[in-house]
Amino acid sequence: MYNQSGLKKIVDEAIINLSYNTEAEKLIDPVKYILSMGGKRLRPVLCLLSCNLFSEKIEEAVMPAAGLEVFHNFTLVHDDIIDQAPVRRNLPTVHNRWNLNQAVLSGDVMVFIANECFLQTPARCLAEVFTIFNKAAIEVCVGQQMDIDFEKSKSVSHGEYLRMIELKTAALLAAAAKIGAVIGGADKKDSELLYGFGRNLGLAFQIQDDLLDVYGDSNLFGKIRGGDIIANKKTWLLVKALEIASGDQLKQLRKLFSGTESQPERKVEQVVRLYDQLNLKAQTENLANEHINLALSQLGKVTGSKERKEELALLATSLIGRDK
Amino acid sequence: MYNQSGLKKIVDEAIINLSYNTEAEKLIDPVKYILSMGGKRLRPVLCLLSCNLFSEKIEEAVMPAAGLEVFHNFTLVHDDIIDQAPVRRNLPTVHNRWNLNQAVLSGDVMVFIANECFLQTPARCLAEVFTIFNKAAIEVCVGQQMDIDFEKSKSVSHGEYLRMIELKTAALLAAAAKIGAVIGGADKKDSELLYGFGRNLGLAFQIQDDLLDVYGDSNLFGKIRGGDIIANKKTWLLVKALEIASGDQLKQLRKLFSGTESQPERKVEQVVRLYDQLNLKAQTENLANEHINLALSQLGKVTGSKERKEELALLATSLIGRDK
Repeated sequence: MYNQSGLKKIVDEAIINLSYNTEAEKLIDPVKYILSMGGKRLRPVLCLLSCNLFSEKIEEAVMPAAGLEVFHNFTLVHDDIIDQAPVRRNLPTVHNRWNLNQAVLSGDVMVFIANECFLQTPARCLAEVFTIFNKAAIEVCVGQQMDIDFEKSKSVSHGEYLRMIELKTAALLAAAAKIGAVIGGADKKDSELLYGFGRNLGLAFQIQDDLLDVYGDSNLFGKIRGGDIIANKKTWLLVKALEIASGDQLKQLRKLFSGTESQPERKVEQVVRLYDQLNLKAQTENLANEHINLALSQLGKVTGSKERKEELALLATSLIGRDK
Repeated sequence: MYNQSGLKKIVDEAIINLSYNTEAEKLIDPVKYILSMGGKRLRPVLCLLSCNLFSEKIEEAVMPAAGLEVFHNFTLVHDDIIDQAPVRRNLPTVHNRWNLNQAVLSGDVMVFIANECFLQTPARCLAEVFTIFNKAAIEVCVGQQMDIDFEKSKSVSHGEYLRMIELKTAALLAAAAKIGAVIGGADKKDSELLYGFGRNLGLAFQIQDDLLDVYGDSNLFGKIRGGDIIANKKTWLLVKALEIASGDQLKQLRKLFSGTESQPERKVEQVVRLYDQLNLKAQTENLANEHINLALSQLGKVTGSKERKEELALLATSLIGRDK
C-alpha cells in the first residue's frame, strides 16, 4: 500500500524521466522549467491512490498520471499568458522568462507530450481512459473561457461561478480519480463514485483557494494577500458578496471594483472589511467543508479496504487544512 | 472507388457535423470560423484515398481524417499568432478578428477536438493510429520551433531547411497517408511506403509554396507577391541563394535582407532579379519535381489496384501543377 509522499516521489521520477524529441532544445527548455517548479502533484497522486484502492499494479497508472500533470502544467503556461501573470511560485512565468511565442508553442507541445503519456495506458482500457481525460481537457478549456467571460460580465451568479470552477478545476481532479480507478480495475459504480469524489474535492479546493487569497497566510502561499481583489478577479467571495450585499455595502463594493481605486493596499483593506461584515469567511469555509464532506461520503460508498480509503480521505481533508 | 472531390465533400460534411461542448459559445466560434475558411482538405483527402487503396470501408477513416484537418487548423491559429499574421485566405486571422487570448484558448481546444476525432478510430488500430498522429504532432511543433529559430539565425544550410519543412509540413502529410493505410488494413511494408509517399509529397508541396511566393500568380493564391521576401522569411530560395551566391551578389543579398530597405516593392524586385541570376526558379522546380518523383516511385511499390493508385498520383502531381 502506498501513501501520498511515496506516490509523489514516483510521479516526480516519472516526470524527470520523460523522454523528449530533442531536435529543438528551445522548445523543450520551458517544458522542463515549468515541470520542475514543483508543486503537490495533486492530480497524479490522486490518480495513483485511486488506482491503489483496486490494484497493486500502480505502475500501470504511472504514465497516465504523469500525463495529467503535464496537461495541468500546459494549462498553467497558457493561462499565465491569458492572465498576463508575471510570476508563478516565485519564479517568472514562461512567457515572462522567454516570450509570448515561446509560451504558446512550448505549451502546445506539452499537450502532445501528455497524449504520449496517455498512449502508454494498458491496451485493455486505453480508449476508456483517454476518453475520460479528453472530455476533462475540453471542460477545462470551457471553464477557462467562462472565467474570461466572467471578467467582462457585470453580474455572475454563484451558481454560474460554481459551474465555472467545476469545469476549470474540478473536472480534471474528477477525471484523475476515475482514471486511476479504471486502470485499477474498478467497476462502473466505483469509478463513478471516485469521479464524484474528485469533483467535490476539486470544488472544495478551488473555493479554499479563493478564500486563502483573502484570509490565507500570504507567506505560506507565495502570493500577495488580496491578489485576486487587486486584479478585480471574480472569486467565490466576490460573487457571493455581490449577491448578498445591499444598500450602501453594495454601492461600496461596486465602487471598489470599478477600477478607480489607485492604492491597491487600501482597496484590499476596504474589501476585506466588507467581506468581514458579510460574514463571508465562515460561509466560504462552510461551502468548502460541505464539498469535502460530500467527497468523503462518496468515498465511503466505494468498495475497498478501509485503510486505503483512509489515504484518500487524508488527501481530501489536508487540501482544506482540516487534517491539522 | 472514391476520387478527390468526392472525398473532399465527405470530409467537409464530417467537419460541419462535428459536435462541440456548447456551454461557452465564444470558445467555439473561432473554431467554426477557421474550419469554414475552406481549403483543399489535403490531409484528410490524402488519408481517405490511402485508406481506399486497401478497403471499401472508408467511413472507418473519416473521423481520424477530420481530426487531421482540425489539428492542421489548430496549427494555423497558433502559427498566425506567432507570425503576427493579420490575414489568412483573405479573411482576418483569429487573433486579429477576436484577440490574442481567444486565439490561444480556441486553438487549444481544437487539439482536444482533434483527439476526440482520433478516439473514434476503430478499436483494433486505435493505439497505432493515435501514436502515428501524435508523433507527427510533436514533429510539427519541433519544426515550428526550428522555423522560429531560423528567423534569428544568420546562416541556415539547405539541409537544415529541408529538415525543418520535413517536420513542420511533411510529417503530417506522411502521417495522414500512413493512418489511412493502417485503417484500411495495409501491411507494415505498404503503410511505410505510404508514409514515404506523404513525406515526399509534403516536401514538394512546401518547396512549391516557397516558389509560388516569388514566381506564382499572386491573384490565384490570395497572397502578395514576395510576401516571404518582405517578411525576411527564410525560404528554400533564400537559403539556397545565400549558399550559392558569392562576391557582389552575396553582398547585395545580405544587404537586401538586413532590414534597411524601406520600399518593399523595390526589395522584392531586386531580390527576384538576384534569384533569376542564380537560376533559382529552375533549381527549385527541379527539387519539387524530384520529391514528387520519389513519392510516385514509392506509390508504385504499394500493393493495390492501379486505378486507385492513380487517384493518389493525381493528387501528387496536381499539388505542383504537373497535372495540367
